[in-house]
Amino acid sequence: MTDDLSHLRADAQENRDRLLQAARDLFGARGLDVTMREVARHAGVGPATLYRRFPTRQDLVDAAFEDELELCRAIVLEGAAHPDPWHGLRTVVERTVELNARNQGFVDALVAAGQVSDRLTRHRAELLHAMAALAVRAKSAGQLRSDFVVDDLLLVLLAARGLRGEDAGERLVAARRFAALALDSFRASATHEHLPEPARVAGAALRAAV
Amino acid sequence: MTDDLSHLRADAQENRDRLLQAARDLFGARGLDVTMREVARHAGVGPATLYRRFPTRQDLVDAAFEDELELCRAIVLEGAAHPDPWHGLRTVVERTVELNARNQGFVDALVAAGQVSDRLTRHRAELLHAMAALAVRAKSAGQLRSDFVVDDLLLVLLAARGLRGEDAGERLVAARRFAALALDSFRASATHEHLPEPARVAGAALRAAV
Repeated sequence: MTDDLSHLRADAQENRDRLLQAARDLFGARGLDVTMREVARHAGVGPATLYRRFPTRQDLVDAAFEDELELCRAIVLEGAAHPDPWHGLRTVVERTVELNARNQGFVDALVAAGQVSDRLTRHRAELLHAMAALAVRAKSAGQLRSDFVVDDLLLVLLAARGLRGEDAGERLVAARRFAALALDSFRASATHEHLPEPARVAGAALRAAV
Repeated sequence: MTDDLSHLRADAQENRDRLLQAARDLFGARGLDVTMREVARHAGVGPATLYRRFPTRQDLVDAAFEDELELCRAIVLEGAAHPDPWHGLRTVVERTVELNARNQGFVDALVAAGQVSDRLTRHRAELLHAMAALAVRAKSAGQLRSDFVVDDLLLVLLAARGLRGEDAGERLVAARRFAALALDSFRASATHEHLPEPARVAGAALRAAV
């Protein structure tokens, strides 16, 4: 009986691992635009097993991107704590855009609208607060354009989702070039033109968090 | 007999119109990530009718974006011919990014890899040539950063695909802000940093056209 139970537990753990691996593979290659059915098929388990382990799509997304979310948190908190605010801002932009290039769907998961887990909501609030404080420091230092808003950073992250190259190597080169151009657009400069109104890309869910 | 034939022709034309309208609606709202089956269902015709009218997916995409392609061509050729090269470059960036915000999937269609129609291949070659010549003029005038490459323009267009707002109005505001930031990153400035290697985002198909 004990053997049966531990066997069942091992099976359950194995199914969970296979589902998470399948979700990471598919999300990583194609972004979040993957059906639950495809994830189950890729993992070689039935849809019922998938829904028993991860009752909602958000549960699966959260679990699949848990490591990336921790990494993103470390990147932002480290950047925000850097004594040179421009250096901090640059590492955040470069590393988050690269993170998305390596793990397509990560930014989708981060900015997902609608019902999300409490954990993700807390994460977002923490990260947006840290970035807002970093932006204030960088503006005071005369490094960041005065009309920059935190939504501009999210705009760049959202835009990075459009850089779907033919392979991971091309995506990474594109992401690096794109991040460098974005940083040049953020940096205080006498030649910058007047910007049109900021885009409220953060969405109600993200905005409410700050 | 004549009546029967003209009736059949009218039916065929009506089916074609409904399929194109359905394709434009779905592509415009969600980008090219729509199945042929969904287009047929949305148009209220059977898949067989869809495939008889548009044997390949590319035939349908080409036909659906015919107007946008003409508009894009007009935008680029007009911008490239402007006496002030920076003004020309700015209108091209602003208007093509806006065009994509209004018609999601248009940039996908423009840069689609793989087998495309001869017409699209000719269009691309013409537009890339015009943009390359405009960039040379803008650099000579000291308006455009010297390390800009035409791939950077495509990079911005590809990135614009990531700006999928909750509604068309938000998408447009985001597109305008994004285009203005991109232009500030392109403009010659003493404060710009060294850029990493260019991304070959044009892909072999686009590159071969220039």
